Amino acid sequence: MTYTAPIADMRFALEACADFWSLRARYPDLDEDLLAAILEGAGALAAETLAPLNRSGDRARVSLVNDVVAAPPGFREAYEVFKQGGWQGLAADPTYGGQGLPRSLALAVMETLHAANMSFALLPMLTLGAIEAIEHHGAPDQKALYLEKLISGEWSGTMNLTEPQAGSDLAALTTKAAPQADGSYAITGQKIFITWGEHDLAPNIIHLVLARIEGAPPGSKGISLFIVPKFRDEDGSRNAVRCIGLEEKMGIHASPTCTMAYEGATGWLIGEENHGLAAMFTMMNAARLNVGMEGVGVAEAAYQKALAYAKERKQGLVIIEHPDVRRMLLTMRAKIQAGRAICYACAVAADGGDKAMEDLLTPIAKAWSTDLGVEVASLGVQIHGGMGFVEEGGAAQFYRDARIAPIYEGTNGIQAIDLYGRKLLGDRGEAMGRVIAMARDAAAQSKDPRVAARLGDAATALEEATDYMLSAERNDALAGASAYLSLAGDVIGGMLMARGVAKTEDAEKAALLAFYAEIVLSRVGSYLPLIKLTAAPLAALT
Amino acid sequence: MTYTAPIADMRFALEACADFWSLRARYPDLDEDLLAAILEGAGALAAETLAPLNRSGDRARVSLVNDVVAAPPGFREAYEVFKQGGWQGLAADPTYGGQGLPRSLALAVMETLHAANMSFALLPMLTLGAIEAIEHHGAPDQKALYLEKLISGEWSGTMNLTEPQAGSDLAALTTKAAPQADGSYAITGQKIFITWGEHDLAPNIIHLVLARIEGAPPGSKGISLFIVPKFRDEDGSRNAVRCIGLEEKMGIHASPTCTMAYEGATGWLIGEENHGLAAMFTMMNAARLNVGMEGVGVAEAAYQKALAYAKERKQGLVIIEHPDVRRMLLTMRAKIQAGRAICYACAVAADGGDKAMEDLLTPIAKAWSTDLGVEVASLGVQIHGGMGFVEEGGAAQFYRDARIAPIYEGTNGIQAIDLYGRKLLGDRGEAMGRVIAMARDAAAQSKDPRVAARLGDAATALEEATDYMLSAERNDALAGASAYLSLAGDVIGGMLMARGVAKTEDAEKAALLAFYAEIVLSRVGSYLPLIKLTAAPLAALT
Repeated sequence: MTYTAPIADMRFALEACADFWSLRARYPDLDEDLLAAILEGAGALAAETLAPLNRSGDRARVSLVNDVVAAPPGFREAYEVFKQGGWQGLAADPTYGGQGLPRSLALAVMETLHAANMSFALLPMLTLGAIEAIEHHGAPDQKALYLEKLISGEWSGTMNLTEPQAGSDLAALTTKAAPQADGSYAITGQKIFITWGEHDLAPNIIHLVLARIEGAPPGSKGISLFIVPKFRDEDGSRNAVRCIGLEEKMGIHASPTCTMAYEGATGWLIGEENHGLAAMFTMMNAARLNVGMEGVGVAEAAYQKALAYAKERKQGLVIIEHPDVRRMLLTMRAKIQAGRAICYACAVAADGGDKAMEDLLTPIAKAWSTDLGVEVASLGVQIHGGMGFVEEGGAAQFYRDARIAPIYEGTNGIQAIDLYGRKLLGDRGEAMGRVIAMARDAAAQSKDPRVAARLGDAATALEEATDYMLSAERNDALAGASAYLSLAGDVIGGMLMARGVAKTEDAEKAALLAFYAEIVLSRVGSYLPLIKLTAAPLAALT
Repeated sequence: MTYTAPIADMRFALEACADFWSLRARYPDLDEDLLAAILEGAGALAAETLAPLNRSGDRARVSLVNDVVAAPPGFREAYEVFKQGGWQGLAADPTYGGQGLPRSLALAVMETLHAANMSFALLPMLTLGAIEAIEHHGAPDQKALYLEKLISGEWSGTMNLTEPQAGSDLAALTTKAAPQADGSYAITGQKIFITWGEHDLAPNIIHLVLARIEGAPPGSKGISLFIVPKFRDEDGSRNAVRCIGLEEKMGIHASPTCTMAYEGATGWLIGEENHGLAAMFTMMNAARLNVGMEGVGVAEAAYQKALAYAKERKQGLVIIEHPDVRRMLLTMRAKIQAGRAICYACAVAADGGDKAMEDLLTPIAKAWSTDLGVEVASLGVQIHGGMGFVEEGGAAQFYRDARIAPIYEGTNGIQAIDLYGRKLLGDRGEAMGRVIAMARDAAAQSKDPRVAARLGDAATALEEATDYMLSAERNDALAGASAYLSLAGDVIGGMLMARGVAKTEDAEKAALLAFYAEIVLSRVGSYLPLIKLTAAPLAALT
């Protein structure tokens, strides 16, 4: 697979759209040259080391033999290059060897890894979650024990939430934690869908595991978070946790999705007893944003592949000359740019301490960008024609890989519930009101009257929809929540692109925004009937 | 896999929506009892014989060893059941053993086969194409030689169009036909993507092959159609055609997609010299409608699977109680019912000799229903959550299988060009004008004021869009053609459902139509900016 990090597009999204340099005061050592150097370095890693393993990893898959999961050929060497480059610790605490750079910059780096090799990138993504959980919730001795090795990439991390009977419903989980005399807990239970839960790329794996301490209250208020290292800290002995199965999946074949058995494994409580969900949400929020970025990354890879094919493939004309093919390619490109801007803006909000905006944008970044990943990957298949359906063509893998992103880290339906229930109701629409005002502002400042009109109307539609959601009965609002999220993403993506265009003289980006306004913003009003769909007609389903 | 033919839904679509009984005078022997018996018989074949092989066939795949392609285990026995049931010849000429029933009824039968096992159903679907080509274009001796054995299912048929350098652009094909002393032609060339081009389920395979007779004019006016039997008619000896490779595809794993090498194979001209494309279009049109039906079939199977899962899976509540899950399920169900009605109506138009309506509806049935197949299969995956991405869950296969349908038999982009260039311009919008009038009529007769309003507005939008397409510059029209097709499909699906509801007292179908009006018809106006997209902004793509 050939992939080139779209550095100009990334910088436009980060600097112009997402207002990255509003962070300048917080990161005085960071300047344009360093930013460029980091993105170029990441781009080189992605293009030269990871992309060449994308298709071979898909074919080779992973295997479980005698409790050992073998990564596909080449992954060990690639992980070594990744580790040596210091990429894992880009945004981590310098006390433990991190570089203390903005998370938004680390996210942009992750975009290139996701694009080049989604299966591979899941490994650092999960480790990042473990780092953030321990940074935020770990006791000093836990930080000392784990952070340095995780941040250097020597060890990797996992998140263990799901159980066979408890998917999105964490309150139902049953994994047990029995207190031991030495202060540790014996963890017993089974976890499923554990990404990179077992592998041979790192000498130790640090599992973050949700479980119930004996006697804890039922439901979500009785869940605690534990650190369960594959090899015990005390003596380096093998802990009683092992991978007992791998899922056979439709995509991301090169990443092991493990069923993990905990059989009285030694675990250490992290954070407060029975407050495990809150701690897990630290990981989840970062992971959700990263999954959104995955959607953008895989879409970018699919776009590049389709564009190259369209320039080379003749059907009468070279197919890129066909208006319908151009329409598809531009749709891909415009939506990718919007999704990228949303994800980066969410991370910049996090870096800038704008918690309300980070919270608001997280479910949108996750769901909108992963829907986009599937849509764009499907368009990529379509542009390839018959070769799109044939695995050799390369487009099919993106379509298969992209499909997981709307599901994991909370399905997109759950993101919509989160946007409505926690975020919108949480501040009675205040943060969304800021977004609407920004969209109005961007519309007013646009030099393109069509864009100004489309974006202005879109802002009004978002306002109407927001007012409705805030006043609707809960079940009615839930029936329209997914459409509301889609509408919000459409508008926010357009607003961010318009902000970027206003700051630059980039004619191609202005044309892309105009196209986005015509094909996306022009349609947002039509979401209103879907958003206002009440629970009543849903009773028609029997 | 569990699948139950949705006979009530099928009959509603066929009889109430598509006005099947308008054909009564043409088929005096056909009555409701026979119709019911045929659909129930097909449903039993699909459910009991084909559906159980769907997942096993996906896993087993097909293999090519020493020029022989082995079908997956169980397919031989299933094909025997299919053959013995006389299903292949349902709509074929009684002179050669067919049953002379309406093609629309045969299409409904095919729906159940596509739904139960898309890979399997491709075999009779391709044979059907060969039967129709020979019925329409064959000389009497060719009919005598081939039809009986094809109609009985003893032999199977294929369509050989695509070559490595010529996909959608048939004018570029280079396979040669050299005249021989005995009146036959020696066919030499390579064809790709030949579905069921080689297999071990039938003792002979009749290939219909496009090729150029030596000295024929270049381009599409120099193409002739040939019959190339795997075993020669004269002496039963093996013809010089063989499968030299199978594609590794993302889906429909149980159907071989062959690269066929013709090395001076004996072929017989069918139809007139240099008029091969016209003859091929006889097959193509039937095949396009059948591919549309495939989209509906795989969507129905995905829907049934998702519905069953949603009723059984708990996440707090049984997940079907979640408004967002109900919304997805109802969206699937409503769109399936619309797509089914469109496909059936197209076939009823063909049976009734309404050529203009058949021609108009064919590209819409193909493209709209196959887009629907992908969308619904993707929703099915989403409803399954993590289990949707795991192959064991069964939803993933539908998502992989469904993805070919928008590609083959002319990509959906080509269908949109056909709808605009051949159909709309061909009669200056007359047939579409009839459709618009029917939609207005159905709106006026609806007892549900919301449906009446939505459908009336949708008819107006279709009229506006049609007027635009008829007057636009060609390249501008082509830029909006796909959106125009989507709009037309949305409206026609709603119109047909409304006609059906008006004729029955089926409250569930009335509720489904109301839902369709709210989530689909309410949005059709928003296609207008996409349809009116001109070629100019597409220049932004570099």
